[in-house]
Amino acid sequence: MSKLKLDISMSLDGYIAGPEATHEEPLGKGGGALHEWAYNLRSFSETHGRDGSEGETGTDDDVLAEASSGHDAVIMGKRMFCGEDGPWGDEPFEGWWGDDPPFRKPVFVLTNHEREPLELGETTFEFVTDGIEAAFERARDAAGSDDVQISGGAHVAQQYLAAGLLDEMQIHIAPVLLGGGTKLFADGEKPLGLRVTRVIESPAVTHVRYEIER
Amino acid sequence: MSKLKLDISMSLDGYIAGPEATHEEPLGKGGGALHEWAYNLRSFSETHGRDGSEGETGTDDDVLAEASSGHDAVIMGKRMFCGEDGPWGDEPFEGWWGDDPPFRKPVFVLTNHEREPLELGETTFEFVTDGIEAAFERARDAAGSDDVQISGGAHVAQQYLAAGLLDEMQIHIAPVLLGGGTKLFADGEKPLGLRVTRVIESPAVTHVRYEIER
Repeated sequence: MSKLKLDISMSLDGYIAGPEATHEEPLGKGGGALHEWAYNLRSFSETHGRDGSEGETGTDDDVLAEASSGHDAVIMGKRMFCGEDGPWGDEPFEGWWGDDPPFRKPVFVLTNHEREPLELGETTFEFVTDGIEAAFERARDAAGSDDVQISGGAHVAQQYLAAGLLDEMQIHIAPVLLGGGTKLFADGEKPLGLRVTRVIESPAVTHVRYEIER
Repeated sequence: MSKLKLDISMSLDGYIAGPEATHEEPLGKGGGALHEWAYNLRSFSETHGRDGSEGETGTDDDVLAEASSGHDAVIMGKRMFCGEDGPWGDEPFEGWWGDDPPFRKPVFVLTNHEREPLELGETTFEFVTDGIEAAFERARDAAGSDDVQISGGAHVAQQYLAAGLLDEMQIHIAPVLLGGGTKLFADGEKPLGLRVTRVIESPAVTHVRYEIER
């Protein structure tokens, strides 16, 4: 049975983007620090169209490589895809990632606004307007027996968590306090128990994997 | 030079107490899960007046024993001492910990309301009304060359952090989402970089030690 997993970087104070995020600066003030652990790694370079041979290897690179390959379909929210809610407009934005996005598998983008599928390099973006369960079904079909990964943002992760559909989370806890921005977890939900299933440490970030108690 | 350290348990979503905390239930709804990793440990039993010989030993116990002994003075807020702000009243509460509190060293309680020192077992509580810097000075004098530990609550930790007085934090990240309550870190502060200096893992909790970047 394939699993639904969340993989995301979060500050120690619980944010996945800093305050005052804009289309130009989607990670908000100070938010770049969330992903500092990843930028210079070999697997990051390789999946982002740079020459991987100069990237750093080691523990963090192993975790990133595993996180990039351990699933066969991705779900994300429209805001993660383009930084904004609302209609697509006349020249719909094609995502942050250029001609060859790093996913290289089917990506299902949750949105309230219909749009034709988009193929960029080895990545296909399909736009799903009929809710989180429909997106999960389509992603699971695309993934076959493999897992499905939620890449963000917070609102999408929160919806899957609240619906009891999420099996596992890997949180890359970045050593920074952002003091505001987009919280990963929602307030107002009932307390929810987790099980720590793996911890991988490095000086740059703490990778903790949790199973969700049902 | 002695250091000022924070040692505290926090949920993955950033809370040190759950919602709806009361004098009767100071950890709020679900907040007991924050300290579940500690309750059955030998060092917890020993410092809380129970027979330690039946407590569990191992990684978490080593961390707790170290956290209980690696300093010679403690600072806490009035709310951590008694669950409430405001005047002491006619029969001032003597803390949650009974006749023999687990600290066994000088404890400095930050409050706006004067009160005579209180001696219980091997612990002395002194009540400091002239602010966080005065409390730190008195605690540092009491600790000699040893470190000073902030035990909570959030508001006290936030004040020391904002004043640039905190050197180090050990956060025991408990595998639970509380969905509300008392946040450890304040919103509205500037982004602040940390350095991971140690990670100790167990199935029950992830102990991460950070140095604060200045």
